[in-house]
Amino acid sequence: MVIKNVTVIGGGVLGSQIAYQSAYKGFTVTIYLRSDASIQRTQPKLDRLHRIYLEELNKAKNGGPVCDGLVPDPQNPASADYDALLAQAEAAYTGLRLTTDLAEAVQDADLVVEAMAENLQQKLDFFAQMAPLLPEKTIVATNSSTLLPSAMADSTGRPEKFLALHFANNIWKQNIAEIMGHDRTDPAAYDLVAQFAEDIGMVPMKLRKEKAGYIINSLLVPLLSAAQGLLVDGIADPATIDKTWMMATCAPLGPFRLLDIVGLTTAYNVVMNHEDTHTDPTCMHARLAKLLKEEYIDKGKLGVITGEGFYKYQ
Amino acid sequence: MVIKNVTVIGGGVLGSQIAYQSAYKGFTVTIYLRSDASIQRTQPKLDRLHRIYLEELNKAKNGGPVCDGLVPDPQNPASADYDALLAQAEAAYTGLRLTTDLAEAVQDADLVVEAMAENLQQKLDFFAQMAPLLPEKTIVATNSSTLLPSAMADSTGRPEKFLALHFANNIWKQNIAEIMGHDRTDPAAYDLVAQFAEDIGMVPMKLRKEKAGYIINSLLVPLLSAAQGLLVDGIADPATIDKTWMMATCAPLGPFRLLDIVGLTTAYNVVMNHEDTHTDPTCMHARLAKLLKEEYIDKGKLGVITGEGFYKYQ
Repeated sequence: MVIKNVTVIGGGVLGSQIAYQSAYKGFTVTIYLRSDASIQRTQPKLDRLHRIYLEELNKAKNGGPVCDGLVPDPQNPASADYDALLAQAEAAYTGLRLTTDLAEAVQDADLVVEAMAENLQQKLDFFAQMAPLLPEKTIVATNSSTLLPSAMADSTGRPEKFLALHFANNIWKQNIAEIMGHDRTDPAAYDLVAQFAEDIGMVPMKLRKEKAGYIINSLLVPLLSAAQGLLVDGIADPATIDKTWMMATCAPLGPFRLLDIVGLTTAYNVVMNHEDTHTDPTCMHARLAKLLKEEYIDKGKLGVITGEGFYKYQ
Repeated sequence: MVIKNVTVIGGGVLGSQIAYQSAYKGFTVTIYLRSDASIQRTQPKLDRLHRIYLEELNKAKNGGPVCDGLVPDPQNPASADYDALLAQAEAAYTGLRLTTDLAEAVQDADLVVEAMAENLQQKLDFFAQMAPLLPEKTIVATNSSTLLPSAMADSTGRPEKFLALHFANNIWKQNIAEIMGHDRTDPAAYDLVAQFAEDIGMVPMKLRKEKAGYIINSLLVPLLSAAQGLLVDGIADPATIDKTWMMATCAPLGPFRLLDIVGLTTAYNVVMNHEDTHTDPTCMHARLAKLLKEEYIDKGKLGVITGEGFYKYQ
């Protein structure tokens, strides 16, 4: 089996990027959306992505920096035929199909990538609704950041063809895809999805077992949590902490700069997930939640996205 | 008061570097050593440092890369007078005084930097022995990596003039100094030591409060521990974990590359400090300790220092 027809479920930030990038790389892509209102919210995201891809390709064509996800060989960007890539972007944009008809959306899907909101019950209900509509061949992947595939496998009706395929934001430049099966995932389905990730310009990061947080967040959360602990405990300020980290590890970005990129709302949600945040106001998590809310979020300082977080941008 | 005369206690890896770098930057430096045997072990370390400094300065003079701790203005290394710096290195090397006479070593010290082995009782005994020999003016700093200054302050007889000044290895290029007082450290002494750190070419990282692990290890240990957890749990291999981290955070080094630099013996010691390592053989720490010992340490794979750790070097 070869993956050719891809159906993306949901047109949010990641859903629209996965759809556009897959189409850009030559796959036949359908986006399933719940309602006409969803279609109206998704189309501007696709328009914006189309502008970005054209802009980035034109920049690269004129000798500017190259986004790794856009060219066939990121090690050798000069070898790319940028006019052909611009034509690919046009074809992607015009070829994308948006529909509210689920049966039609999945009727010939080789791969379904689910990119709905991060809500387990909604996902379970959706998978159960989709299961009888899928052809035998279809592999189903979830882009969930926090839920384990084993928790959803049965609802798909095809646990052996179900796994996680997790993207980072801005996939045309942050071109990582973490691939994670569960106990019953068929290795053949796993390999096909890993190959698909590569075929759409991602660097596939293969997890051998299930792990909450995958690789990235399993590493990032403890680092960012430790950095925020130093801040709430008054040990040092963000600039000092970042500078120390950067000098000690040769990194271009310190933890507070990374937090500004991740977004302070996400940082807040992470700390609110700790139980002691709600039961012990003196604990680090509760003090951090208070600091994030009162000093940053309530003041509109959400990070890079609003132009200010721990740092100011522009 | 101005710091001019510096006495370094101990001639180990860091002691010899602190002494040489301080002398190189124009301070009058005495190294106190316990015995003639210690002097004989320390002198070759100073000889080696002297060769490194001359080599690095000559490389930089000929347009090669520049170590930040060696030049007056790392932002503008071309402005440095390398012949004058080479003369400074010669003067440092010939000017260093090694003695086994503690009274003489500290009799006119403005600053004592303790860089003995990491053993609390030995440090307490030493500080108590040194206390009656110190002039009123002397500030005492400990380079301890893991002990808090508050745990040693009273033994110095001058808690208000006692604090931590913590260096990274290879201080001529990893030129960070973490400065950490305890509750009773006089802010004036703190400021003088921060100024001294800057005067010997370090970037001073000022901690406002005591914190085990300072900034660097408070951040590094959770990240490295999370990465090692992914490895022992069989989630992914070191190369995949490093690559994911590097791509996600734009860092040039992933956690396993950092572990090879830190050294696997240190990683092993850190994990052996956890109580459950010794009581529960199924816990992550115990499995990690076993993996580090059997697969790496027992095979001589200690990291960069032996040419192989998680990666091979040359």
